[in-house]
Amino acid sequence: MPHINLPKELPGIRSAMAFRPETAKPLNELVEVLLRDPHSLTPGERELIATYVSYLNDCYYCQMSHGAIAAAHLNDDEELVKRVKADFQHADISDKLKALLVIAGKVQKGGKHVTAEDVEVARSQGATDIEIHDTVLIAAAFCMYNRYVDGLATLQPLDEASYRERGKRVARDGYVTVSKEYLTTYAVVR
Amino acid sequence: MPHINLPKELPGIRSAMAFRPETAKPLNELVEVLLRDPHSLTPGERELIATYVSYLNDCYYCQMSHGAIAAAHLNDDEELVKRVKADFQHADISDKLKALLVIAGKVQKGGKHVTAEDVEVARSQGATDIEIHDTVLIAAAFCMYNRYVDGLATLQPLDEASYRERGKRVARDGYVTVSKEYLTTYAVVR
Repeated sequence: MPHINLPKELPGIRSAMAFRPETAKPLNELVEVLLRDPHSLTPGERELIATYVSYLNDCYYCQMSHGAIAAAHLNDDEELVKRVKADFQHADISDKLKALLVIAGKVQKGGKHVTAEDVEVARSQGATDIEIHDTVLIAAAFCMYNRYVDGLATLQPLDEASYRERGKRVARDGYVTVSKEYLTTYAVVR
Repeated sequence: MPHINLPKELPGIRSAMAFRPETAKPLNELVEVLLRDPHSLTPGERELIATYVSYLNDCYYCQMSHGAIAAAHLNDDEELVKRVKADFQHADISDKLKALLVIAGKVQKGGKHVTAEDVEVARSQGATDIEIHDTVLIAAAFCMYNRYVDGLATLQPLDEASYRERGKRVARDGYVTVSKEYLTTYAVVR
């Protein structure tokens, strides 16, 4: 049961965002810029970083949601998403993305864990300053979203089909657009 | 030395925000809503939560910055800020704020550490749902800001006077207003 009185019709972060639309706005805008705006890393690659960090933080709702969005961006390759979580060094992704996932994993532990060597390895695989910056901020941001979702003990459905269906919609329409629907319907009036 | 090429004129999160103004916008809007907008917790109380979490995450820049902003909101009581970081249970703050700081400390470890009992204690001290929600999100958000600042190895000045001076300005004018100045001057053009 959630720790506070969240809208019962919504799961995970959506219930928390409907409870507090004032903070939902910048939270959705941040993830839209980080994971969807034009970028040299594809949306699929950036969703894999978000999924991996959510997995490390053991947030079921976030790793399932973003895993489904990642798969929707990556030709429905759900096996690839699972492999990235379990053992990304042997997944079929670029060496650059592997180096960025190393950095993301360090950020999950704490910012000071990232070393100049980690960054040098990423650079040697072609990573640019903005790719390194965004990897650090995506990882840091999911340390926030994961704690927000679990810290309020939000409801987290277990059926994979619901995440798959929603993943396709978010991959198509984006966070800000999709959030407007449920925020309009369920937003808590105080 | 920062891991990427950040504007050298700016310290801490400001250098990262100038490097990436697109993400700076929602990052500043989020902290403005959480720490400054009208609320039953005072700005000083909310800054103490932010400072305490930044201290737990060992982020020097953030604990000094928000500690200075907290002090500016609390009649320049720098000793109170230090006591909250070192031993908040014996600081001169309300029992409600102590119960919320317990929740914030749990969120810093990970969202699942927050228990129904922690929330019940806060409620018994008068905490409302929105106060509990915002405590969880402030703590989660500073797990992001702290990792962002340290994960890029931003420059972090050691002189307390510079934090004190800036703390007074942010306490007076707010995050969004103050950030517009340096983002206008130093934003990196790509």
